[in-house]
Amino acid sequence: MTTVCAPATKTGGAIAIVRISGSQTIDILNKVFTKDLTTAKGYTAHYGHIINKETEETIDEVVVTVFRAPHSYTGEDSAEISCHASKYIVQQICNILTANGCNNATAGEFTRRAFMNGKMDLSQAEAVADLIAAENRASHDIALNQMKGAFSSKLSQLRQQLLRLTSLLELELDFSDHEELEFANRSELKAIAKEIDEHIISLVHSFEIGQAVKHGIPVAIIGKTNVGKSTLLNQLLHEDRAIVSNVHGTTRDVIEDTTDIHGVTFRFIDTAGIRKTSDEVERIGIERAYQKIKQAKIILWITDTLPTEEEINNILKYTETKTIIHVRNKSDIVESYSIEDIFEKTHEDIPFYTVEVSARKGIKIKELEDIIYKATEIPEINNSDVIVTNSRHYEILIKAHKEIDSVLESLSNNLSGDLIAENLRTVITTLSDITGKGKITSQETLINIFQNFCIGK
Amino acid sequence: MTTVCAPATKTGGAIAIVRISGSQTIDILNKVFTKDLTTAKGYTAHYGHIINKETEETIDEVVVTVFRAPHSYTGEDSAEISCHASKYIVQQICNILTANGCNNATAGEFTRRAFMNGKMDLSQAEAVADLIAAENRASHDIALNQMKGAFSSKLSQLRQQLLRLTSLLELELDFSDHEELEFANRSELKAIAKEIDEHIISLVHSFEIGQAVKHGIPVAIIGKTNVGKSTLLNQLLHEDRAIVSNVHGTTRDVIEDTTDIHGVTFRFIDTAGIRKTSDEVERIGIERAYQKIKQAKIILWITDTLPTEEEINNILKYTETKTIIHVRNKSDIVESYSIEDIFEKTHEDIPFYTVEVSARKGIKIKELEDIIYKATEIPEINNSDVIVTNSRHYEILIKAHKEIDSVLESLSNNLSGDLIAENLRTVITTLSDITGKGKITSQETLINIFQNFCIGK
Repeated sequence: MTTVCAPATKTGGAIAIVRISGSQTIDILNKVFTKDLTTAKGYTAHYGHIINKETEETIDEVVVTVFRAPHSYTGEDSAEISCHASKYIVQQICNILTANGCNNATAGEFTRRAFMNGKMDLSQAEAVADLIAAENRASHDIALNQMKGAFSSKLSQLRQQLLRLTSLLELELDFSDHEELEFANRSELKAIAKEIDEHIISLVHSFEIGQAVKHGIPVAIIGKTNVGKSTLLNQLLHEDRAIVSNVHGTTRDVIEDTTDIHGVTFRFIDTAGIRKTSDEVERIGIERAYQKIKQAKIILWITDTLPTEEEINNILKYTETKTIIHVRNKSDIVESYSIEDIFEKTHEDIPFYTVEVSARKGIKIKELEDIIYKATEIPEINNSDVIVTNSRHYEILIKAHKEIDSVLESLSNNLSGDLIAENLRTVITTLSDITGKGKITSQETLINIFQNFCIGK
Repeated sequence: MTTVCAPATKTGGAIAIVRISGSQTIDILNKVFTKDLTTAKGYTAHYGHIINKETEETIDEVVVTVFRAPHSYTGEDSAEISCHASKYIVQQICNILTANGCNNATAGEFTRRAFMNGKMDLSQAEAVADLIAAENRASHDIALNQMKGAFSSKLSQLRQQLLRLTSLLELELDFSDHEELEFANRSELKAIAKEIDEHIISLVHSFEIGQAVKHGIPVAIIGKTNVGKSTLLNQLLHEDRAIVSNVHGTTRDVIEDTTDIHGVTFRFIDTAGIRKTSDEVERIGIERAYQKIKQAKIILWITDTLPTEEEINNILKYTETKTIIHVRNKSDIVESYSIEDIFEKTHEDIPFYTVEVSARKGIKIKELEDIIYKATEIPEINNSDVIVTNSRHYEILIKAHKEIDSVLESLSNNLSGDLIAENLRTVITTLSDITGKGKITSQETLINIFQNFCIGK
């Protein structure tokens, strides 16, 4: 394997890091560094200069940290050169390293090497990219958990169960001349297969949470004009994002922005007030509002007065079966009212929350936030929870679920043990695509996975 | 002194660094890191996790490199936490460090501490910022040279000479009852003072080179319309920056861009072709061209046919005494001609270079680049050369030069030894403002210097 180098930091800060990995790491460094690192132990740092020994030009004053195989990120001999964060210096260091035998690392090459050298499996490698991209606590926790191997060990458990099932069936085949023997009791086998399927289904379902956490949960803010939708949005975003005025129909376009509540990102969509209008631009805005409502998971319905039953039905036409949070705004100036009774009588199947706030005065905004978080029904994510966030994993799990359904069908139809064993082996092979363990991963899959990494990771 | 922390890298890469410095570094790290660093030696790296020990939440998998006082950048106990380059993680690590006793570092605080602890003087500290900002070889070399102490040692030599002068005069004062004694021969003193002044003047003059190197040398490209100015600019920039066409007057605005030649940055200014025009927009462009010519250090004058003496004089009206490079373009299609003789006869005091090129075919562009570099008259900068690039230093040197002029005047006027000694001490104090050594630097100066640093440096 070649020895590669790449900048691992964006320039612009105080310090930049150039990373090197491969068996030639120390030899190449010895050609450009003022200290001899031949006997340098792993996890030691060395102060010196990177120089061009031919021209005697100094490139920079640096600290080189040495990592020795296999105790490094990649599992190979590697090093990190900590230099001054100038684009020119980083470029010069990479130039002199490549002039002395390094290749330029491709995107994700260090992590790819870590996978190749058995330092992590594919799902862990993918979690590294997710971890770097994580912008809120929930995404961070899920990615870190996956990187530490929680998903891998869950899959390994499933694999063990599947192997046990298979070996039971295979044992039966070995004694197939004793027809009376049935090591693997069919109803017991079915129970185990069902249990495995349930685990897979629960992972599949976790993908919805994973996606919500990764991309933010869409929340549409709807209501008649001038009930204070934009003011409320500004309160939730803790800033002045939307133009606020007392003129009906101020928000003509759809405004979208994100904020974190209890570590989860919400994408708030402020829509044009819904009313009959002759203004063409505003009409388009309202049209878009309806489209946005369709994409939302939660509806924040704002009113400033008791809505009529007709209004309620009108709103429900668009919200379908989405969770509704009825926000009674202007609590500082209007008298209290409630539609909970009316609503629950007529639409008991729709999840409904209600709260009285004053967006203008910032009253009970905290309570509203708690309700929004609660309405997502995202279970609190523990360090031990496995949440699928990667669509590659999701597709594999869907496939495995279908395959295990075939197993169950075969068992129901009393098909022969060898056929069922064959079915089970397909499930095992499918699942192992997630970690890349126990089978050879295709170059195509590897390219797809690592091309989305940044250079230097 | 407090213990401070700050991110030292811009997020967006693969790795981020959080830097800590101060006597509490190890104690604070022990509260948030999974390994005990109490006995960790300097220049050792430690793999582990940054965790919130109260909530048991893991923030990231990291490598902590420990530096022990005084063998660290700041001269204090310090550490660098190398983590995944997520904004969220960097923020969380800084949060947990501050929650456990760190203060947030201000801009340039690590370098400021290095200065306070005698690890570097002020001119070296300022060079750190210049080094990070350096975008070409020349700026890089000058900054690195200054950071390594070349300027400081030059100043230290001057200081030694000044101190020797002063002590000679003071010795004389001690024996002032013996009137016949004059330890310090006046003409000898004058010679030494003159020599010191010459050194200071040469440093002052180097500032022009320093500025040119730092900000790029302005080169104006002028000539009649359609002689190929834009085509030549594209050749020099190695790209298609200017719109090229055969229509006279295509370039209506002033196009400016930079490129490096032999490690020095040149700012090329493509001007509208100079001709009589009725087009108002083009007229404004030509007007601007004349203004730009005034700012240029070098004029690239392009022709595609032998210019008349009137044309030569016309050009010279605007170029004043600037260096002219006469580029005879279209060498592939027009016959050779030369104005060198005519020119030298009439304008022998103006530096003149000439070359025959084909911008369209890229012929002799390399030669033109060499001529441009040569025309700057920038001496080749050696590692040992001291070039002043900092306007603070420049102002101090100007002041010191004036003060030493007073010394020389006092010597000429045969003023008393104690007065001259007093004058000399003023020069010493002034010069020591550059390095901050040998006197207490004002808080204001320190704030001015370090406020331009980035956080984490």
